[in-house]
Amino acid sequence: MSLIVVGTMAFDAIETPFGKSDKIVGGSGTYVAYAASNFVQPVQQVSIVGYDFPEEEMNYLKSRGVVLDGVEIVPDKKSFFWAGKYHMDMNSRDTLVTDLNVLADFNPVLPESYKETEFLMLGNLMPKLQKSVIEQMTKRPKLIVMDTMNFWMESAMDDLKEVLKMVDVLLVNDSEARQLTNEYSIVKAAKKILTMGPKYLIIKKGEHGALLFHENQVFFAPALPLEEVFDPTGAGDTFAGGFMGHLAKTKDISFENMKTAIIVGSAMASFCVEKFGPERLRSLTKAEIDERLQEFVQLVNFDITIA
Amino acid sequence: MSLIVVGTMAFDAIETPFGKSDKIVGGSGTYVAYAASNFVQPVQQVSIVGYDFPEEEMNYLKSRGVVLDGVEIVPDKKSFFWAGKYHMDMNSRDTLVTDLNVLADFNPVLPESYKETEFLMLGNLMPKLQKSVIEQMTKRPKLIVMDTMNFWMESAMDDLKEVLKMVDVLLVNDSEARQLTNEYSIVKAAKKILTMGPKYLIIKKGEHGALLFHENQVFFAPALPLEEVFDPTGAGDTFAGGFMGHLAKTKDISFENMKTAIIVGSAMASFCVEKFGPERLRSLTKAEIDERLQEFVQLVNFDITIA
Repeated sequence: MSLIVVGTMAFDAIETPFGKSDKIVGGSGTYVAYAASNFVQPVQQVSIVGYDFPEEEMNYLKSRGVVLDGVEIVPDKKSFFWAGKYHMDMNSRDTLVTDLNVLADFNPVLPESYKETEFLMLGNLMPKLQKSVIEQMTKRPKLIVMDTMNFWMESAMDDLKEVLKMVDVLLVNDSEARQLTNEYSIVKAAKKILTMGPKYLIIKKGEHGALLFHENQVFFAPALPLEEVFDPTGAGDTFAGGFMGHLAKTKDISFENMKTAIIVGSAMASFCVEKFGPERLRSLTKAEIDERLQEFVQLVNFDITIA
Repeated sequence: MSLIVVGTMAFDAIETPFGKSDKIVGGSGTYVAYAASNFVQPVQQVSIVGYDFPEEEMNYLKSRGVVLDGVEIVPDKKSFFWAGKYHMDMNSRDTLVTDLNVLADFNPVLPESYKETEFLMLGNLMPKLQKSVIEQMTKRPKLIVMDTMNFWMESAMDDLKEVLKMVDVLLVNDSEARQLTNEYSIVKAAKKILTMGPKYLIIKKGEHGALLFHENQVFFAPALPLEEVFDPTGAGDTFAGGFMGHLAKTKDISFENMKTAIIVGSAMASFCVEKFGPERLRSLTKAEIDERLQEFVQLVNFDITIA
């Protein structure tokens, strides 16, 4: 009952129509670990940080059952830093600053204690690095899930295609699915991606929910309609963390259980956007999660009796 | 067990990225009647056409249980004509031609036989005319549903606000909900609209599904993910027809049954977009509708057991 999370631990500075954050802790690995640790512990983190990454954050992660043996600390460099500004619709954003810093040297090395873990979440990273992590596993995980982004489709498509053949679930957003396949129709794009390696495909549509494709089946999970999306940063990673956390907890990788996992992911993401950065995830209780899951049941539950 | 439909019966010429139609029969009233007549008959139509409107279309409507006593035929004018061209995303379109013709003189007069009907669907029309129809009813219908559009918000907002106070359900798309309330957040817009008259609000989001709001409750119905949306013309009206048809058939206007009605509407709309204009709706069978409803069950059905 354990989960490896490979992803960034970084600093973000975020501006939305509702406000502006200072430099705060972020990164895909942070959001995935925060979300997943509600469901499964330990979470075995793989990442890289600089000398400036706060020790209190490391201690906080440990207190949530996040193992940091796979997190490299570079003593003479700074942590990865990203600054961005969201537009009014919150679906698009401008990147203002990307300081790779330590990330330029990232070459994940798995500790021995990670190498037989059953669930592996590969955050959005250079495909070569994702591949290297898979190859370091001494036992093929029960489930490998990967995230990626359009940047790798433009700069490393061949490598990306190789990794795709090695994973079980691909997690992308709608524009990435289109770019990966040159298909405008999401359903056509999904069919193509399911021939490229992954047996399951999740297409995230932000405020419009998420779709799960597998063979000829499709499942749709809505996003919770919210009065205000305060800051969407990390919502996709939080979704991934909830999804993986539920699967690693239940150890059931059937299509039926993946449906539930996607609802769990959507519920976690709905919390993430309520405050700046990962702040809301820090204060989250099990009772709040359970209550939100019930809201999702109410949101989509209907009765069809065919006469 | 009857339903009044007030809407246009017209000609459309449609261009999409997938092809181009000749001048074909369309209009909001046509789509609503086609869809609703699968569930409830008679459908009491209120509309206006010119001398050029095909008699075979009138006969076909009659064969589906559509009563035409409320359809005025103007002997010396042409029917309403609209031509439009859809963009690649199918969510936006350019209007190429709008020839009002008979529609400029439309002043709906309800036949006596319509005046105590229990379900009233007011298609998108000048708000003054929608109001006049309501006022002609000798008995207040069990349920009044209205559609409208941004054009009336710009040109007749005061009239629109008056009609809103007289109806039970408002049916708009997301951009119309925003325009009506000056709220960007759909949830905030919904809360405002629910103080303006309607007790129920449906916000249509095209390929992204539809939301039903009532008091503090919300329900979400997805659109069926389709390989190809061939022509979205009439999808919103077909949705309305399925929604009203189910309610008029079951005579149950509870929130729970409205959820089911929205799924029925979404299923009907998913057929509409498969071919140009209302063509697909003509060949539709009950077995096909039942099968599609089951697809919606599969699409959103999940199991949450809270441990």
